[in-house]
Amino acid sequence: TTARPEPPGICRLKKAVLQRVGLSPEQHRQRFRSLELTEAGRPFVLAQQLRDSCRKWLLAGGSDAETIINKVVLEQFISRLPKRTSQWVQCHRPASLDLAIQLAEDQLAACSGVVNQTNQ
Amino acid sequence: TTARPEPPGICRLKKAVLQRVGLSPEQHRQRFRSLELTEAGRPFVLAQQLRDSCRKWLLAGGSDAETIINKVVLEQFISRLPKRTSQWVQCHRPASLDLAIQLAEDQLAACSGVVNQTNQ
Repeated sequence: TTARPEPPGICRLKKAVLQRVGLSPEQHRQRFRSLELTEAGRPFVLAQQLRDSCRKWLLAGGSDAETIINKVVLEQFISRLPKRTSQWVQCHRPASLDLAIQLAEDQLAACSGVVNQTNQ
Repeated sequence: TTARPEPPGICRLKKAVLQRVGLSPEQHRQRFRSLELTEAGRPFVLAQQLRDSCRKWLLAGGSDAETIINKVVLEQFISRLPKRTSQWVQCHRPASLDLAIQLAEDQLAACSGVVNQTNQ
């Protein structure tokens, strides 16, 4: 059976709704960090958009203070690692800071092992 | 009366304690954003330092989720404003996001007034 094609208006509406509803916390974080004040934009509109995406990023796992803070720390931690370690940790999408620390420690230990073997 | 000079060891200790205890939440935020993984540094040490300064920045006003999130939004909001507006808002050290929005709206309105007058 072939699905009946939807009118273009419905398609656009569906896409717009899915774009906002279907974003993962990580996508909300990226939106939060990339929002800009447009030429004609008003600061309070920017602040609303920032608050909206920040809440969807940081409250996804609950509203406990430590959980929220660990997410802010996790973002900064990943951005401060050496580039290859940072990419490797990010690929694993660690759900917690402790997991990210473990991944970074493992990757750096493995890399220094490779360097030592190469030097022998 | 002249104060007896303290031994150099005590001076260094006092300075080190004051450096950590006496930092304002804003200084802890700056430390949080500027910490780096040193050459010989271990990721878990960096994560500890990040967690420490992030907690001192974000928990200074209480551990309510909305209060914490508003601080993260405030930082991002100020960094996204036009440079002069951003500096002006930062000079006033707004304690809340709402105050920062008001300051930014006022500064931009005042600036556009100046531009309009200049153009006449």
